[in-house]
Amino acid sequence: MTESEAKESGLWLADHCSIAMLGTVDRKGGPAIKAMLKMENEGLRTVWFTTNTSSRRVARLREDARACVYFVDDQEFKGLMLQGTVEILQDPESRRRVWRQGFEIYYPKGIADPDYSVLRFTANRGNYYHQLENRDFDL
Amino acid sequence: MTESEAKESGLWLADHCSIAMLGTVDRKGGPAIKAMLKMENEGLRTVWFTTNTSSRRVARLREDARACVYFVDDQEFKGLMLQGTVEILQDPESRRRVWRQGFEIYYPKGIADPDYSVLRFTANRGNYYHQLENRDFDL
Repeated sequence: MTESEAKESGLWLADHCSIAMLGTVDRKGGPAIKAMLKMENEGLRTVWFTTNTSSRRVARLREDARACVYFVDDQEFKGLMLQGTVEILQDPESRRRVWRQGFEIYYPKGIADPDYSVLRFTANRGNYYHQLENRDFDL
Repeated sequence: MTESEAKESGLWLADHCSIAMLGTVDRKGGPAIKAMLKMENEGLRTVWFTTNTSSRRVARLREDARACVYFVDDQEFKGLMLQGTVEILQDPESRRRVWRQGFEIYYPKGIADPDYSVLRFTANRGNYYHQLENRDFDL
């Protein structure tokens, strides 16, 4: 698999997954994972999520912004790992961008809820695998 | 959700998932994720995988054995994260235990292939979530 094939197949996977795993490091430096709804992705570089401002995940990301985002097709044994960093945004434009109908379940005060935060993940490298092949690439 | 409900529901998820995400930390201390076939789990404490001895993941786990294992039901918004450490085993009993028909695809020399390693993950704590609720527990 060439680098451009890996990027192309990885982009297909990112575009078609509605769920991604967000990997972070905990206070002791060990790994942690949580499944998140992917709100948007812009190519392979940027992935948008939302979360509760009050969550431990946000507190931890403020201390250490390193993260990875993982998309998987476990029927076809395809996976894309993107590694980079996360920004925590609360500006009105970002809030509007990824707000969806029904989000009051998570953020009862609506789009201006102080407990509503937007996570913007930016990747600087990736790895795509399909069955026995895998390929690293820079972004 | 009580701690015992979280453990019971988490165990159901671990028992019924054939795929798990393995989280590790890379050389720079950032998070990394890979989907793995779950070979076996013994309750919530122990999860067995296999991998290539020559893989970067094994090299990295020899340096830093900390890992997390994540099981997810993305239809029902249920997830179980187990945190602990990984041992890399090559003894005949462990090899036999998790060897499956067709594994020659990954380990062409068969059950004694030096490139066949068994990963035994042991958890010391966990977190289970279902929709808006989540609960930590020790193991």
